[in-house]
Formats: sequence, structure tokens, C-alpha cells
Amino acid sequence: MSKRYANKRVLITGGLGFIGSNLARTLVRAGAKVTLIDNLSPGCGGNRFNVAGIERKLRIVLADARDPATVRPLAEGQDYLFNLAGQTSHQDSMLAPFEDLHVNCEAPLAALEACRQVNRSIRIVFASTRQVYGRPRYFPVDEKHPVLPVDINGVHKLAGEYYHQLYSRVHGLRTTVLRLTNTIGPRMHIRDARQTFLGVWIRCIMEERPFEVWGGSQLRDFTYVDDAVAALLAAGLSGHEAGDTFNLGGDRVISLRDFAEMLVAARPGARFEVRRYPASRKAIDIGDYFADDRKIRDQMGWRPKIPLPTAVSRILRYFDRHWREYV
Amino acid sequence: MSKRYANKRVLITGGLGFIGSNLARTLVRAGAKVTLIDNLSPGCGGNRFNVAGIERKLRIVLADARDPATVRPLAEGQDYLFNLAGQTSHQDSMLAPFEDLHVNCEAPLAALEACRQVNRSIRIVFASTRQVYGRPRYFPVDEKHPVLPVDINGVHKLAGEYYHQLYSRVHGLRTTVLRLTNTIGPRMHIRDARQTFLGVWIRCIMEERPFEVWGGSQLRDFTYVDDAVAALLAAGLSGHEAGDTFNLGGDRVISLRDFAEMLVAARPGARFEVRRYPASRKAIDIGDYFADDRKIRDQMGWRPKIPLPTAVSRILRYFDRHWREYV
Repeated sequence: MSKRYANKRVLITGGLGFIGSNLARTLVRAGAKVTLIDNLSPGCGGNRFNVAGIERKLRIVLADARDPATVRPLAEGQDYLFNLAGQTSHQDSMLAPFEDLHVNCEAPLAALEACRQVNRSIRIVFASTRQVYGRPRYFPVDEKHPVLPVDINGVHKLAGEYYHQLYSRVHGLRTTVLRLTNTIGPRMHIRDARQTFLGVWIRCIMEERPFEVWGGSQLRDFTYVDDAVAALLAAGLSGHEAGDTFNLGGDRVISLRDFAEMLVAARPGARFEVRRYPASRKAIDIGDYFADDRKIRDQMGWRPKIPLPTAVSRILRYFDRHWREYV
Repeated sequence: MSKRYANKRVLITGGLGFIGSNLARTLVRAGAKVTLIDNLSPGCGGNRFNVAGIERKLRIVLADARDPATVRPLAEGQDYLFNLAGQTSHQDSMLAPFEDLHVNCEAPLAALEACRQVNRSIRIVFASTRQVYGRPRYFPVDEKHPVLPVDINGVHKLAGEYYHQLYSRVHGLRTTVLRLTNTIGPRMHIRDARQTFLGVWIRCIMEERPFEVWGGSQLRDFTYVDDAVAALLAAGLSGHEAGDTFNLGGDRVISLRDFAEMLVAARPGARFEVRRYPASRKAIDIGDYFADDRKIRDQMGWRPKIPLPTAVSRILRYFDRHWREYV
């Protein structure tokens, strides 16, 4: 499928981040003409090493995607925009809500405004999050589940979704929203738990320290980054109704404790401690979550291809080689 | 009821605006100690004349409610906060989405952050809008109706609601959200249609020009500002579940055309022309709207007391005397 991006012009905001850089690598391999915007904002996961080896095959613009004057000339002439720039930490969003507002509302809005002004035929894909659902009322969570964000990050990502739907309905831009669950893989942010708790687990394993499992019974699903990239690419190409929204899920549903055991099985010597879920985080905890992703499976033929144990081995292997670039 | 505010300390953001100033007048009469914040931002309806005659009975802070450092000291020691600062124009929000973001997200968030930091026992009431529902799927629209904003203003006002619910659930602040419909009355913004189309109708009548009715068959409800003020005061005092949301409606449902006829009946010589609804506005038009407001009636004993024809006469009488202060 990525072949269909050969010679296409593709803009990725947040392109030095975890998902953006994996997407860029796939697109470069497919022969696309890729431009990345990233400001390497601390804690957001941007890392120049993420494009090591392909730096000369794409254009990197170190700039703030929130600035319409920056984004406008970059949006001109592009065939596709992947609107990925964002701040992902739920906890940070509660401690610094204005920072979350500035990143997660202004960046997608600036990109949409730029496209409205200079490039209305572009295809746009927005990376949203399961966090917009809040605490699920039923399982698995489909796209019809009511939204009720439980943290500031969820409020602003939901605003980002509404922008994309609005710009589709009102201005005729062709946009698609993907609601990602925990996305994991090489190049993920492991310095801390800002992208997912798995980041800090991996770091502990690399540093030969026990990692902490908070609670443990919570159910989750995980999308391997190659599968997330495949979904982004499919969404860019698909002919579905503009402004539509799709969940991504994983190959299985697993408790955090069982996931921790899977890591231990993959890495002899790794160990973890189960801790009570911290009271300070309880207020923004969503409990269990796993997606019903039949809509994207049915409409785009997407499905997760990488089994979770394979994902875990690949991640460990990647950070065995490169972890010093990430801590 | 307003008696229960005697000697209470009350902060109103957007306090020189239409609703804020009417609220301030009632509170001053009730013996409350009122502080207003307003930056008289053009187009938002703030007008010093709105507090003519009571200037010495309250404190006016001409400042930007979006600045946490400004709001924090003002929030200290207050018993009530009415979070009213905002930009109301749907059309402006589409033309200048960042300005709408800065006003309608940052101002309520700054006030909440200030209260979280220095005053967690304050009671907070947020003025939201029926616009969060988008195009109604059924009538009358109750609070369980799905939200799907059709313009940028609606996206940001909805974010404002979520902030209030979040700060209640996570930080224990006592907040209430009111979803206002068309609010009308003395001191409304009549320079243009930025607050409601009725503003520009009134202006035309005062200037003895025909006013334009776009479409005419759309159904609407209208809350007279004294009734809206009574609802705000009731919400501040009520012991309902924190973070809860209530619709406000009017004394009747009426088509725009019939409402125009009511104005003509109240003001001999007034006349109007029916125009086709402009194509440029169609994309963000919500069609019919009228609220089911039984929840606030049942839980707070509120109901609209001023019949629409009385509201119309009072508005005309007010602007007969003072229209030069408003154009």
C-alpha cells in the first residue's frame, strides 16, 4: 500500500517524534517526498536520532508547528498531511494545562488553517487518542461510545478532532481522525512515562532496575508502531466520508500484569514490582480500555499484523542497540 | 434569592459585558461585594456604560482574564466566581479561530487554575452555549443530547465546559455549567450581530432602517437577561452535583419571522425584509433549536418569568434612551 505514496509530497507535523519518524521512514522507503516539521519540544518525544540514516532523503524543518506563518508555505503543494504534532502526557496536561492547550489545540489548528488558505485538495490524517472517551462505559469501546475526557489532554485532543471534522464539513478539506490506543515500538519515548508507561518500563529494563506496575489488573490493547503507520497510510488513501473517525486497537487484550510478565519472559533478568495505583493519578485514571476497531478493519482492510510478543522483542532489540540515544 | 448574596464576595469575568453587567447590577442591589474583570475587547460586548450609576459600588479591574497572574490575586477570598468572559460570534470564530481559542479556552482555564491554586472553596458558574449541541437531532434539546459543535466557537465553549467538569472531578472545585440559548435584554451588544442577530435588528429599528430576517422559519427560544441572571444566581447557590450541566430555555418557542412580527407590533414603523439564508453561513447554521430546560426547573426551581413581548418592549425602551452608548 505504501507504494501508492511513491513520488507523493507528504508533510508530517511532529515528524521527529515516535510515530512521525516511523511513518517518515516507511514513506521514504516508498519513494515519497517527505517534509517533517518538529520543534524538538522537550518531553514530546522528538529526537533527531529517530531519522538517523535517512536525514538526506527528506526535508527537516525545525520549527514550531503552532505558527501559521511557518506552516503555510510548507503546506503548499503537498499531497498529504499527517497532523501528529502533540503533547501526549496526561499527567503533564493536568500540571501545565496551558502548555497542553498551546501544543494540542494550536498545532492542529494552524495546520488546518494553512491548508484552508493554500491547499484545499490535500488529504489530512489526524492522530487522536482513546483518551477522548474517558472512563469506558462498555467494552470494547467503539466510535459511537460517548466522549467525556477525564484529563486536560483529552479535552484538547477532542478539540483537535472537532477542528478536523469542522474543516471537512465547512471548508471541504478531506480529513480523517484516528483514535490511537497505546502505540509501542522502536523510537518510542523511554526517558519517562510521558508517551506510555511502557516507555519507563523499557528504560528500567535497559538499566537493569525493576520496573513498577501500578495496579496490574487494568486491561489494555497495544498497537505496534508499524501497524499504526499502516493505519495512517490507509487513512490517507481511503475514500471514506471526510471527517470520519476510526479506532485503532491491538492484536489482543491483556492486563498490565500479564504484559509485564511478557516482558520478563522476553528478557531474562527483567523484574517488576506491583504497586498500588497512586492516589494522585486516580482522578484521571480511565480504568480498563480496549477498542472495537472493526470500523477501520471493515472500511480500510486494516488489521494489526504484529503479535504483541513480537512487538516486545523488536522493541527490546532496538533499545539494546540504541538506548543511549533515548535517555 | 439574590438576598443570599448579601455581603458575599463575587468575581465576574467579562463583567462589563451584556450578561455580566446585568448580573453585577443585581448583585450590587443585593448587597454583594462585586469585582469585575474585563478587557473591553472589541466585539465581545464589554461597555463601561453597562455599569453606569453603580461604578462606585463595585470594583472594576480592566485586565485580561486570560492571564493567570492577573486572575490569581483576584480569585483569593471570593465566595463566587461567574466565569463569563468570552467571545460569542460564530462567524468570527470561523474567520479568526485562534482569537476564539485564546479567549474562549484561555479565559475560563485561567480562572479555574487560579481557583485551584488559591481558592478551592469558591463556587463557580460557567456560561456555556447551546452551540455545543450543533444541529439538533431531536426537539426539545435536553442535556443528554449528543454534543457535536458545528463551529469553532462551539468547539472552544465545549472545551470550557469540560474544564469545569474536570476541575470539579479532579480538583474538587464546585462548578456548574449553564448552556444558554439566545439571551436578550438591555445592555446587549447591538453594534452588529456578534452576540445575537437580535442585536443588529434592534440597531436597525433604532436607526429607522428595515432589518433583515435570514430565512425566517427557524425556531428559537430566547431568555430574557433577568431570567438568565436569576439562573446564574440559582446555580451559584444550588447544592446539585458539582460539575453538572443545565440548559436554559425561554418562555416560548417562536420562528424568527414571528419574532420579527412581534418587534414590528411593539414598534410602529419598524419593518423587515426576508432574505434567503446566506450560503456562506449555511455551513455553520444549526437550523432549529429550542431547549428542554426541565432539569434546571426541577432541580433549582428556576423558570423564565418575563414573557417575550415584555422582554421586547423593555429592550426597545432601554435602547430608545441609551442607543448612542451602544453603536
